[in-house]
Amino acid sequence: MDVRKDAAILHAARRLLLQGGPAQLTMEAVAQASGVSKATLYRRWPDRDALLRALVAHEAAPLLHTLHTVPPDEEALVRALVRFLDGLLRFVTRPAYRRYLQAVAALPQRRADLRRIWLLGPQQAVDEVAALLQRYAEQRGAVCAEAPREAEALIGMAMGLDMARVLYQQPPRHQRAAARRCHLVWVVRRFVAGLALGPGRQAGG
Amino acid sequence: MDVRKDAAILHAARRLLLQGGPAQLTMEAVAQASGVSKATLYRRWPDRDALLRALVAHEAAPLLHTLHTVPPDEEALVRALVRFLDGLLRFVTRPAYRRYLQAVAALPQRRADLRRIWLLGPQQAVDEVAALLQRYAEQRGAVCAEAPREAEALIGMAMGLDMARVLYQQPPRHQRAAARRCHLVWVVRRFVAGLALGPGRQAGG
Repeated sequence: MDVRKDAAILHAARRLLLQGGPAQLTMEAVAQASGVSKATLYRRWPDRDALLRALVAHEAAPLLHTLHTVPPDEEALVRALVRFLDGLLRFVTRPAYRRYLQAVAALPQRRADLRRIWLLGPQQAVDEVAALLQRYAEQRGAVCAEAPREAEALIGMAMGLDMARVLYQQPPRHQRAAARRCHLVWVVRRFVAGLALGPGRQAGG
Repeated sequence: MDVRKDAAILHAARRLLLQGGPAQLTMEAVAQASGVSKATLYRRWPDRDALLRALVAHEAAPLLHTLHTVPPDEEALVRALVRFLDGLLRFVTRPAYRRYLQAVAALPQRRADLRRIWLLGPQQAVDEVAALLQRYAEQRGAVCAEAPREAEALIGMAMGLDMARVLYQQPPRHQRAAARRCHLVWVVRRFVAGLALGPGRQAGG
């Protein structure tokens, strides 16, 4: 496996995906844009779906990585959530993301592709926040029965209308890093203060 | 003023706006689609911007109407917010809204138009929720110092990732009216329980 070729393929594929949405991502176009032969490309990824999955996972990994922890106390939970949401807000307010959203919305895209990206991207973010809340609850001998619902509510609270702002070409609510972080600390503290933890199995009667 | 002509104009203009975003909304196209003369159209609306503003205000009015109340107690506040958010979620998950968002995202649109719609639509919704929270606080001799931030957090909590679902062509989280309402009652109760009200001027030392 040639690591440089691998990087060139992912780089070219990512550019195609961000510029035109999944419809632009064909094995033909990726081979051409990365300067590798189609034979090499197919040796590395057996089909286009595998490449698309790898690409979305690769894009989401640095964001989701911040959630892979077992927070020993509330402060650690707050820190992990703020770090994750900060990365998420930076991600969705980049100009490249706006172009990508435009492409996803505008060009005809295969529904199966959109479904795949949805599950590996936004839906996985919700699932991993929910899992973090669950691990936090377990640390305290409790359960977080509404974890998936809580997780999506938190992400929504943090984003507010920023996704609509992207589509309406309005600047994000918090443009400066310090203001964004300050906002997120407020959001996460408000969220954690209202988090309903029920008694765990040991604690039950 | 001929009421039927007025209705025909607004109906045609609305269809153009929803199908192609503001770029499709020209006085020429509206006159043609509504079957009135351009002279009649200009007598009623002096220019296209006035028509666009009227249209967005007309679309937002039934939603915002539910916020025009002074809630005497917490239960009344919860009811008003649930009713508003229910209307909002129904609005953004309609197929017509998806086509509209696609048009907004995809076709070249004048930034001034997008700004205008942003201010009269989403931004006004945030402002009016904030004003409702403020009136509720005042009823209790308190102030809601973070009202605009709280308002946007609430809307975000309620919507969750439903706007992203629209773009990715995924079904909304709660498709049935009863499930959506049940979710919104949970969201609003959780929100109101954590609402920070500070002492009002009379109550202060």
